[in-house]
Amino acid sequence: MSRARAALTEGIEVLDEHGQRETIQIPAERPLTVFVDKRELVTLMTLGAEPELLVLGYLRNQRLVDSVHDIESVTVDWEVNAAAVRTRAGIEDFDRKTAKRVVTTGCGQGTVFGSLMDELDALALPGPELARISQRALVVLLEAMRRQESTYRSAGSVHGCALFTIAGDEARLDLFVEDVGRHNAIDTLAGWMWLRGTSGADKAFYTTGRLTSEMVIKSAQMGVPIVVSRSGITQMGHDLATQLGLALFGRATNRHFLCYSGFDRFDGDPTLAKAPAVAPGAGVSGAPGP
Amino acid sequence: MSRARAALTEGIEVLDEHGQRETIQIPAERPLTVFVDKRELVTLMTLGAEPELLVLGYLRNQRLVDSVHDIESVTVDWEVNAAAVRTRAGIEDFDRKTAKRVVTTGCGQGTVFGSLMDELDALALPGPELARISQRALVVLLEAMRRQESTYRSAGSVHGCALFTIAGDEARLDLFVEDVGRHNAIDTLAGWMWLRGTSGADKAFYTTGRLTSEMVIKSAQMGVPIVVSRSGITQMGHDLATQLGLALFGRATNRHFLCYSGFDRFDGDPTLAKAPAVAPGAGVSGAPGP
Repeated sequence: MSRARAALTEGIEVLDEHGQRETIQIPAERPLTVFVDKRELVTLMTLGAEPELLVLGYLRNQRLVDSVHDIESVTVDWEVNAAAVRTRAGIEDFDRKTAKRVVTTGCGQGTVFGSLMDELDALALPGPELARISQRALVVLLEAMRRQESTYRSAGSVHGCALFTIAGDEARLDLFVEDVGRHNAIDTLAGWMWLRGTSGADKAFYTTGRLTSEMVIKSAQMGVPIVVSRSGITQMGHDLATQLGLALFGRATNRHFLCYSGFDRFDGDPTLAKAPAVAPGAGVSGAPGP
Repeated sequence: MSRARAALTEGIEVLDEHGQRETIQIPAERPLTVFVDKRELVTLMTLGAEPELLVLGYLRNQRLVDSVHDIESVTVDWEVNAAAVRTRAGIEDFDRKTAKRVVTTGCGQGTVFGSLMDELDALALPGPELARISQRALVVLLEAMRRQESTYRSAGSVHGCALFTIAGDEARLDLFVEDVGRHNAIDTLAGWMWLRGTSGADKAFYTTGRLTSEMVIKSAQMGVPIVVSRSGITQMGHDLATQLGLALFGRATNRHFLCYSGFDRFDGDPTLAKAPAVAPGAGVSGAPGP
């Protein structure tokens, strides 16, 4: 696997309402065309922070490759904005798997291949007695996100996504990823987990994005039963989470949150509810450019 | 054209950090499978406010139909979540046009068919001397958005998009649309314009979403040279707008904004810069769930 790197922000000159020119930082965004065994699969627009993990996670979440061991190499070259994936035995039914298109929400029109929806019933998450989160662990998670340095803070307009390991009242940050799109960010986490063969049973996702249908689907696919968002929820996200048994927390910043589903995975402790003194808009508590 | 209607919000029970149960409204979200001459094209996840215009705009912005006159009827039936499009003469090269997939940003993975990118050079907007906006008209536009009643205010988690006609220091709201995805919202505006044969030359778009590559592309496709966003911008959005000559305004709420590109289309008046007294988070000035 290559370790391609590229600048994550660039400066541009803007004009403000006072007629002043200033230079601000904006997030980089570059096309990454994915070739699988020399066949063009898709072009992803990405910040470019973790392109190899993004490609792995994309292949995984689109269910194009069953095992990471089927992948021989992933080589990203920003000179040509291309990711070359080599598989050991090729992808079975490549055409069929990539034929059907279901356009999902999130931005409105994210792509999830059709066969994915058919799998939903097959997804089984660990029960509430095995996978749960306490209010204290949730507060620890949100505090970690509040302190997280990010491209968002310096340039805005990116979504952040993080993977946490939950153990009792502790929440340990495993990986934090940002991208111009939250689908890319969560796919990158998926790639990280897939590469390590990490189970999602004791994990929780954090995302700055809304809890839409495909975020719930991707979490369930990766076996992560708990998802925390700074933002809100849509009906399909709620319906799917209820159906699949995920615990969803939204509007989550500092010590405030709403549990939308999976109440039975949550150990509440209202004594933790009182918010600490935090400067308005401090840390990640401000909402990003949607 | 049918006029299918459906509920835009639904109430769900949530649990807050104080251990209190409450019922909140969340935006509806439903699949709408588009059939063109009985062939399945795509499934859009939508709020469902203006499904017929959404379908028209989607066909238009995906460049699947050249003229609205080629479309005989659009019939949406929420009983089966389907939109039946009948064309007069069928769609030429249907398979080729829908074959290539370029996944763009926004959410990270919105779908824009490949051929669209090839058209970019062909897009020509009216020059700065013909299509421009004054700071006063911009303030009027932002004030209209601040006062706009919306599903976002009652349920959050939706993107808003509006079309304005700019005339001197005036900005007249033509249409305001919300959807779970901002691609859908802007496609719906495109459908409205297409149906009326409206030129974009004297128009400006407002969106709550980020100024990403496909938002710029869609604006240019519709001949709208001015785009205003409450949110920020990504590099591809900036690069394309600069290349295509669009004026982009971001971080725009009340009287504050940043002009990212197309300075030559803007008549600034810094005397309007002083912000009026507005309660924090009032109106649409708060960011939505991205």
